[in-house]
Amino acid sequence: MSSIIGLNYIAGARSGAGDIRLQSVDAQSGEPLPGFFVQATDAEVDAAAQAAASAYPTYRALSALRRAEFLDAIAEELDALGDDFIATVCRETALPNARILGELARTSGQMRLFAKVLRRGDFHGARIDRAMPDRKPLPRPDLRQCRMGVGPVAVFGASNFPLAFSTAGGDTAAALAAGCPVVFKAHSGHMATAELVADAILRAAGQTAMPDGVFNMIYGGGVGERLVKHSSIQAVGFTGSLKGGRALCEMAASRKQPIPVFAEMSSINPMLLLPRALQQRGDQIATELAASVVQGCGQLCTNPGLIIGIRSPEFSSFLDRLASNIADQPAQTMLNAGTLRSYQAGIGRLHAHAGISHLAGQAQQGSQAFPQLFQADVNLLLEGEELLQEEVFGPVSVVVEIDSRKQLQQALSALQGQLTVTLIAEPDDLENAGDLIAQLEQMAGRLLVNGYPTGVEVCDAMVHGGPYPATSDARGTSVGTLAIDRFLRPICYQNYPSDLLPEALQDANPLGIWRLIDGHSCKEALV
Amino acid sequence: MSSIIGLNYIAGARSGAGDIRLQSVDAQSGEPLPGFFVQATDAEVDAAAQAAASAYPTYRALSALRRAEFLDAIAEELDALGDDFIATVCRETALPNARILGELARTSGQMRLFAKVLRRGDFHGARIDRAMPDRKPLPRPDLRQCRMGVGPVAVFGASNFPLAFSTAGGDTAAALAAGCPVVFKAHSGHMATAELVADAILRAAGQTAMPDGVFNMIYGGGVGERLVKHSSIQAVGFTGSLKGGRALCEMAASRKQPIPVFAEMSSINPMLLLPRALQQRGDQIATELAASVVQGCGQLCTNPGLIIGIRSPEFSSFLDRLASNIADQPAQTMLNAGTLRSYQAGIGRLHAHAGISHLAGQAQQGSQAFPQLFQADVNLLLEGEELLQEEVFGPVSVVVEIDSRKQLQQALSALQGQLTVTLIAEPDDLENAGDLIAQLEQMAGRLLVNGYPTGVEVCDAMVHGGPYPATSDARGTSVGTLAIDRFLRPICYQNYPSDLLPEALQDANPLGIWRLIDGHSCKEALV
Repeated sequence: MSSIIGLNYIAGARSGAGDIRLQSVDAQSGEPLPGFFVQATDAEVDAAAQAAASAYPTYRALSALRRAEFLDAIAEELDALGDDFIATVCRETALPNARILGELARTSGQMRLFAKVLRRGDFHGARIDRAMPDRKPLPRPDLRQCRMGVGPVAVFGASNFPLAFSTAGGDTAAALAAGCPVVFKAHSGHMATAELVADAILRAAGQTAMPDGVFNMIYGGGVGERLVKHSSIQAVGFTGSLKGGRALCEMAASRKQPIPVFAEMSSINPMLLLPRALQQRGDQIATELAASVVQGCGQLCTNPGLIIGIRSPEFSSFLDRLASNIADQPAQTMLNAGTLRSYQAGIGRLHAHAGISHLAGQAQQGSQAFPQLFQADVNLLLEGEELLQEEVFGPVSVVVEIDSRKQLQQALSALQGQLTVTLIAEPDDLENAGDLIAQLEQMAGRLLVNGYPTGVEVCDAMVHGGPYPATSDARGTSVGTLAIDRFLRPICYQNYPSDLLPEALQDANPLGIWRLIDGHSCKEALV
Repeated sequence: MSSIIGLNYIAGARSGAGDIRLQSVDAQSGEPLPGFFVQATDAEVDAAAQAAASAYPTYRALSALRRAEFLDAIAEELDALGDDFIATVCRETALPNARILGELARTSGQMRLFAKVLRRGDFHGARIDRAMPDRKPLPRPDLRQCRMGVGPVAVFGASNFPLAFSTAGGDTAAALAAGCPVVFKAHSGHMATAELVADAILRAAGQTAMPDGVFNMIYGGGVGERLVKHSSIQAVGFTGSLKGGRALCEMAASRKQPIPVFAEMSSINPMLLLPRALQQRGDQIATELAASVVQGCGQLCTNPGLIIGIRSPEFSSFLDRLASNIADQPAQTMLNAGTLRSYQAGIGRLHAHAGISHLAGQAQQGSQAFPQLFQADVNLLLEGEELLQEEVFGPVSVVVEIDSRKQLQQALSALQGQLTVTLIAEPDDLENAGDLIAQLEQMAGRLLVNGYPTGVEVCDAMVHGGPYPATSDARGTSVGTLAIDRFLRPICYQNYPSDLLPEALQDANPLGIWRLIDGHSCKEALV
């Protein structure tokens, strides 16, 4: 990690005025890694926000094609990061090499997908209502609408995705695509990774002649509050805990000018196992579900934390098999010591509860996390026991056995908002399932049939969001191209001469994009 | 007003369990009108929210076409309201007959426009990414996205638009279109109007077999807080004061489950008068602008409250003419005694300020509002004097004379967020105006050239929104079809059988709508 210099990134330069020095840690050994990171001072936090604000007018005025070039250049730089980089990420997070390689490809792919969105042009949201000078009783003026970036965005890196939800991750990609400069708060768990990715972004910014301050990054604990409260920041993206996300929302709401926060927080991702599916392929489901529970050491927002089945011989035999599969899974190193402590505490609470029994998993000890399976009495769920609503971050799931299909909807109505909810079902199970599916739609952002929620595809149709506490605002997503919407606002031009309009709204339609003209979608120019 | 019974509307029935009785007032005479309105009790507020929650699963599951029928039926019922109704609205608000007739047509037209949006189907936001079973390293599942209503919406009526921003106004229309039942908090200034409109909505609901509780209405002071804090309410629409809107935002943010609030609040709608335009048609501008300032007794969110010009003989002569026009305008009765008191207080603050001089307007006295024109020293604007940022609700505007075009951008940067900002300009004035327009884009939701901000067209391209404090969230609009977006959230279906998907996403595209399929917009069915 010879290239690590550990200073904050402000307006295209490096700055380390403070005297608090932080170290990154080898997640396996707990040993400090070489090098230091200098916590941003208050003045540096302000300077980073100000740098983004200074870059904003220039950056948002660039054509979408120029911004697309920037995102593509970031993707190229990310793909060019070598084995040393991968090794650094693995050391900081204890995540396996193959996972990090996959996550890197996802992260550069995400940048390229947003570049495609910029070229496609639907994000402009172009709408034109032509003048009707002869309308009675009043003429209608010419009115045209498109969307622009809201302003500088503060992004908080997630512990569990050092690449895809961090420095050059989905929130950064969406904000940059929208024309919003970014101030990124590096996660303390992977500061060296953050630095190497920030370097890649700045190289891309240089190659494509982006304004200084289009991307800024600060290190340190407690710097986030000052950042969110800075008057230049106009929106916040966050992936992390319910407590952390909620705190950011409250900071943002209490500003002189309140700003929107999109916080992706807590979800237990219920899996509903229906009878015919268990009859036909119970063993296979037990194998697949165990793999999903332990994937990434359970450190995924979409980890299946609640498994609901209906009492039957098939469910009992499925449970035996699942318990045995979970018991067979090896312990894994977690992202950092704090994550392990939280996992141990969460497991401890489940062990301590009288209505919850332990089904499988070696006694939790040492420096690694052992996968665990618990079973809770259905009444705990029906009574709204908090422990069953709470995400325990790690390789653990809780089974609830219900009496009947009828009780299923009662059990579901006790649950809070979720990122995902999954049906494992055969066609027979899904007959007359309309009411059940309607209930699922009301509780989650993504509904799956015969899949596992881990693995979030980056595409146009993805929703990685959902009702509180899954996120702070169910109207957004932090994965997929719709994520750009969080950072755009509409603007209307009344009676503007065509040459003073943004290209998306000019008569000739120079971008060749789809536009809603007098209520009809078309690509035609206006004459 | 023999049909007024004054009870709250809950789940399709009437309820008046409380003992606080309110009276509506003749806005001209200040005399109480016959009849009483019973303030909702806490239990009734809860029941209204619960009724909306009970209606939600049924209502949102109706096809968009069925909801469109409901909106069209409301429009028909509104149009059928007779002279007695118009007379009631005029008595409660002191607004003239012609204005109320126009506002009624706008309100029914707004319902019909949302019905059109429902039939057009772009609000579904349908996106499909087809499965790629052979993709390496991992297959892609079938992923489909559309949007659904967020849940019951609380809507607060505005004082100044008893129809278009009230019971059956834009927020109600947008929420009902989105599939969200409404609990409407009637404004104390026009409770009889609210009752007659609520009756019209319920007749339409009956004719089109909508579920009980699709629309509910409560009367009373202080009932709004309990409503916003009710766990069933999922979003809030509000038009009113900065203080009121901000209080609602804080209530919503402090709930166990925070919810979005779209509050349209405070804007002074700057008018920038450029030199060539004043040279060529100064007198005409003075006439038109005076008419805009006094329109509706200045009780419009888009009232031009700040007029900026560059020192010149033309500007001086324009000012003389404007002052004379304002002085000539008659006094008008305001919406209610409280509005007049606020206007008097606002005028008083302007009179009292040493840096502000009075240009025109009779001494404010009696029961009507006299139009007023003031001039403020440019330094007050440059120094961010609060008084110049503050909307004084009524027929008043403040002129600021600046030294040069260069100072214009400095003056603008001292301003807060606005609903509108207007350029009065000839083509010569707009040469090299790129930087100026960029600045305007950053400060407002709607930009006009050679028009007046009063008069907000209801159409696809309208934005009645803007940066804080114009609204609580610049990403929304409360007028025009995009207003529906505030009350929709995306949902993703992964690997769902086609027959279990919403119609918008089914293979055959039974709705015949535009969909984004694998990144391309098309109307084709999937085979």
